[in-house]
This record gives sequence, structure tokens and C-alpha cells, in this order.
Amino acid sequence: MEAKPIRVNVEELTSFCQRAFKKYGFNEKDANTVTDVLLAADLYGIDTHGSQRLEMYRQQIKKGFIHVENQPSVAFETPVSAVVDGNRSMGHVVGKYAMEIAIEKAKKSGIGMVSVRNSNHYGIASFYSKMACEEGLIGVSMTNSFPAVVPTFGRRPMMGTNPIAVSIPAEPVDFNFDVATSVVAFGKVEVRNKKGIELPVGWGVNQDGKDALDAQNLIDCIFDRTGGLNTLGGATQLFGSHKGFGFSLIVEYLTGVLSSGITSNHSEEGGVSGICHYFMAIDPKLFGDPESIKTHWSKYLEEVRTSEKAYQQDRIYIHGEKEEEQHQDRIKNGVPILPKTIDEMKNLAKQLDIDFGINLPK
Amino acid sequence: MEAKPIRVNVEELTSFCQRAFKKYGFNEKDANTVTDVLLAADLYGIDTHGSQRLEMYRQQIKKGFIHVENQPSVAFETPVSAVVDGNRSMGHVVGKYAMEIAIEKAKKSGIGMVSVRNSNHYGIASFYSKMACEEGLIGVSMTNSFPAVVPTFGRRPMMGTNPIAVSIPAEPVDFNFDVATSVVAFGKVEVRNKKGIELPVGWGVNQDGKDALDAQNLIDCIFDRTGGLNTLGGATQLFGSHKGFGFSLIVEYLTGVLSSGITSNHSEEGGVSGICHYFMAIDPKLFGDPESIKTHWSKYLEEVRTSEKAYQQDRIYIHGEKEEEQHQDRIKNGVPILPKTIDEMKNLAKQLDIDFGINLPK
Repeated sequence: MEAKPIRVNVEELTSFCQRAFKKYGFNEKDANTVTDVLLAADLYGIDTHGSQRLEMYRQQIKKGFIHVENQPSVAFETPVSAVVDGNRSMGHVVGKYAMEIAIEKAKKSGIGMVSVRNSNHYGIASFYSKMACEEGLIGVSMTNSFPAVVPTFGRRPMMGTNPIAVSIPAEPVDFNFDVATSVVAFGKVEVRNKKGIELPVGWGVNQDGKDALDAQNLIDCIFDRTGGLNTLGGATQLFGSHKGFGFSLIVEYLTGVLSSGITSNHSEEGGVSGICHYFMAIDPKLFGDPESIKTHWSKYLEEVRTSEKAYQQDRIYIHGEKEEEQHQDRIKNGVPILPKTIDEMKNLAKQLDIDFGINLPK
Repeated sequence: MEAKPIRVNVEELTSFCQRAFKKYGFNEKDANTVTDVLLAADLYGIDTHGSQRLEMYRQQIKKGFIHVENQPSVAFETPVSAVVDGNRSMGHVVGKYAMEIAIEKAKKSGIGMVSVRNSNHYGIASFYSKMACEEGLIGVSMTNSFPAVVPTFGRRPMMGTNPIAVSIPAEPVDFNFDVATSVVAFGKVEVRNKKGIELPVGWGVNQDGKDALDAQNLIDCIFDRTGGLNTLGGATQLFGSHKGFGFSLIVEYLTGVLSSGITSNHSEEGGVSGICHYFMAIDPKLFGDPESIKTHWSKYLEEVRTSEKAYQQDRIYIHGEKEEEQHQDRIKNGVPILPKTIDEMKNLAKQLDIDFGINLPK
């Protein structure tokens, strides 16, 4: 039987994470930034990218990927663009810094594009695209990652899961698209592994270059770089594998190449994660009246939402709606966390000698 | 037995198309532009978008969608952006005009974004992204279309096939990505219909909101707007249908919404096709030395190309390679055209009272 998650109060979870990150060596501002990004994931229901990653980031600091005292800096810029060097600091700190630059440029010049090198894992891509959206701008955020995804007809992982996030102001809920360009996110394979369920044909390729059906084997292949996830569209052109493959390559270009950083296949070489990002903010007023544009977009999304449903389906979800509903629920009722993760957090508090400070239901 | 295509000389085919379009009422410059776009498709092997569409465009002129004497104009602009009104003129003429504006702005300001309303079918998306690429720029081209694609969990077509093309300078062949955001292009369903082969589960949804397996039925559903193609990722979230759905919506925003035009679900209302496009050109020098960036990108693509292959596969194709090989073959050996299409062309020549002028092998 699966253990039931415990609902944890958002403020208590937030301040626990802040204490932990300060103890990791981050200054107060950076500890708060990292916590903000993780908690956003927890609140949107993207549990694989939330506070349960505390331990992962500690490991990456130990390995020397993340330098807690470093700060990102601008390496190159124009009125509409910049290259940011993450200087191996925390991905979330780098991401927020770079998107703030993109937003500032968009406010002055209508558009800001920022390509980032030498960073680290930055959490959920849409945290940053939403930053732009909250200012009435179109926000775009992408990242490469460690190599986990194989080219169409290949078997060595040459790309990361390379998510693309796009946020566009809309009523009643902002459009908020955030997807890996792999057929599924790595976390979905982990979930099937824990549950002991076989993988569907098309998710991944094993060390023999054949369909990977065993989840643990696929995970091993990814870490050995002998196999990997397929791109969106699966393994063959029958369902458009070359389409996901192309999107994935475009992410590599905008992140690793334009920044003069590295592509995913060279990530984690020489003790450096070297992960690269790309951010863009566009002011819709470059094309007319932002309010009319927003009204038109909202009307179209409503037409799509209310259009006829497929057999046995009762709802069409526009991107961002599910997350917004989760957000409202979790703000009110707390973030669901598995007892095992709670124990790990308690243990972490002891090791770090900080107050746990989360009141659990009796 | 399927009829064997006949190889037609490129110059002869070109001048036949130019004569036909002039007879349709286009001035010489526009007739040449339309021919250039159609021939590019013929040369890249994208036969569904080439000279065999001559008749389709004639029908669209008759229906009043295309006004042969109209010209596009700029409705709104800034140093980095423009909205172009197609004024119901030919899509290819509008597309070339709008991409030229994007390129000009990219040369001055580093980036040019042009959203276009009130246009028509513009041929292959990558014709325009390649225009930018040939100037050393990153080129992007998108279009909405008549409604043919259903939302995830929906059954009424609310989006077009909404292709996205991205061209990026590379050696030895430019990266040239051009894909429909539907799981397959409409033409693939037509091919299966002609061959009498069942459709795979996941390509489309029929009038009952269930998997469409009969190709003719799916085609009928699309024209009745009672069913349609699925988005990239298929019908369910198991393979990421919501991902293709999101990309498709983003195309609708950039084309139909930003231009104050119409979204695909309103195309062909009131005797107007109203198709909308989006073009973008970016100068890579916004991010550093364009030559270093191109070298880095080409090196990465070569690493991907030469990486280990999947079982029974001997080649990884980077986007644009297949098209380039077709191009070289067809320039040399002619464009393969089916005898039936040749007959239609001869017939068209008679009807238009123009010289056919294509020398066929005895």
C-alpha cells in the first residue's frame, strides 16, 4: 500500500526551506529566491521539482557543481539581448537574475532575450516565464540539462529533457505552458519504476537501441549514457519523433550555443554541470493594444475550452488551469508530502542543526 | 499498380507555373514569387505543397479568398516589430513581403518580428525561415490555417495544422526545421486514403469523439468540422498530446491574435480565408560572434549526427539534410510528377490558353 501524503502548511514549509538553504551557505536573498522557485513547484503540483529536491541540491553543492557564494554576471549585452554567465552559482538565482534583465529590456525596447551559460539546475521552467507574464509580458523560458534524451534513430543521450515554458497573459487564468521536449519527463519513468509498471513502447531506448520497457533499466541506461528517453513524438516518425527532436535541438541552440556555453551532451564534464538557459520577454504592445490582444486571446481560449469533447471526456484543459487549481488548493490545505520525505526533512534539520518547525497533524 | 512519376525539368516547370500565375491575374513579380515558393517545395521533396497545388489556388481565387491584384501593407510598426495586413492577397506574396520586413529590422535592430493578418495559404513555412537563414540570421515562420486539429480531449477542430519552421545557419547544411504541430500533416491522411490503409490510433478523432481509423471518414470529419487530427503527441497525455496542443495554441496567438486577425476556428467565415502568419528574424550577433556561434552549432550537430544508432538504424538525420539531398537530386534529374498531375497541368494550359512547354520523355 502506498503511504498517504501529509498536508504541510505552506508558510512553515517555506521557512524550513529558507533555513536549510541559508545553512547550505546561501545569503538570505538567495536562500529566499531558491525557496520561492521550489515552493512554486510544490504549489502548482509539480512535486518532482519542489521542496523534496532539498537533498539533491545539497549533493550538487558537495560535488562542486553549485558554488553557493558565487553570483551571475552579464558577459555581453545589447538593448534587446544579453549573455549572462552563471559563474556556477545556483540555477534559481541565475534564472531570476537573467529573467529580470529580459523583463527590463522588454520594458525599454519591447523585447529582451537572454542566453545563459555556466549555470545549474533551475527548477521549473515556468517560474521564470510567469515572472514576465505577471508584468503583462509574454514570457519564455528554456533550459538544457544533463543528457537524457536520444535523437530520432539514435541511442546515446545527446540532449537534455530541454523544457520549453511560454506564459501569456489571459483571463481568467494566464496561459502557462511548460513541457519537456522529451516524450515524458524523467520523473514519470521514476514513478513507474517505484510502482513496478512496465513502460509503454515509445518512451525510451535501451542499451541495445531497442524499446526500453523496464523502468529501472532505462534509468540505469540514462546514467550510463547507453540509452535514454525519446523525444516528443516517440521513437519513430509515425507519430512525429523528428518533431520533438527538432524542438529539443532548438533548445540546445538557444541555451548552450548562443550563450557560448555547452550543449547537454557535455554537461557534467570536468566537475562542472554547465547547464545553460534561455529567457525571453516580449511586450505585446509591439503589436497593438495589449488589452485588446489579451481580450482576444482569452476569448479564443474560452472557445477552445468550451468546444465539443471527445468520447468520455468532460473537460478540455488550457495550459495553466490545472496548476492554478492545485495552487488554490495547496495554499488553503497545505502541500502534500510523503511521510518518507517528511522523515528525510526531519533528518536534514538534525544534520544541519536547524529548527524543523513544521507542525504535523497528530 | 501505382503510376510511376515522370521527371520534369526544373526550368520548364518553373516557367509553366509563372505563365499560369500570370494568367490567373498576378503581375509578373508576384507570379514569380508564388512560383519560387511552390518550386522550393517541389525541390525539397514536399510534393503536397508544390506545383500540384496550381489548381487549389485557382479555386481559392474563384471563391474570392485570394485577390490577385491586392498587395499587403504595414498596419503598425516599431523598430523591432510590425503588423502586416495581407489585404487578402496571395499568401506567398504576403509571406515574402513580411519576412523581408523582419529581415530588414533584424539587420538594423538585431531582431524583427512580424505578425500578419488577412492573408491566405502561404505554401511551405520554411521558405520564409530560410530567407532569413540565407542572410546569416535565425529565421522563424509560422502560420495558422483552416481548422483541422482538435484540442486534447476535444473533437471539434479549433486549430489549424499550424506549422512551425526554424532555420539556423550551420555547416555543411543549414538546420531547417519545418513541422506541423498536429501529429501528422493532413497530406499523410490523404496518402493513406489513396492507398486504402487504415490510420494508426492517435492520428485523429472522428464524429463520435473516438479514434478515427478510416482515412476518408477523417477527411470528411475535418471538412464538416465534426472531427479532426490530433496534436503532436496523439490523443492522450501518455505520449504528450497536451504538448502539441500547447505548441498549436502558441502558433494561434503569434499569428491570429497578435496581428488582430483571426484564429483558425474562424477561418473561411464570410467568404474570407483570413489566414494569419508570424515571422521572426534574429541576428546571432546579439549574442556574440556569429561565426563562432555557427561553428559551435555545426560541431554539436555533427556530434549528434555521428552518435550511436538505434537498433537497425544506420543514420540520424538532422533537420534539413533530407531536403538538401532531394534538392540536389531534383535540380539534376528533374521534379517527379505523377502522370495524372501532368495531364491536369496540360489541361490547365489548354483552359488558360498558355503554352504547356514541358518536354516529356518519350
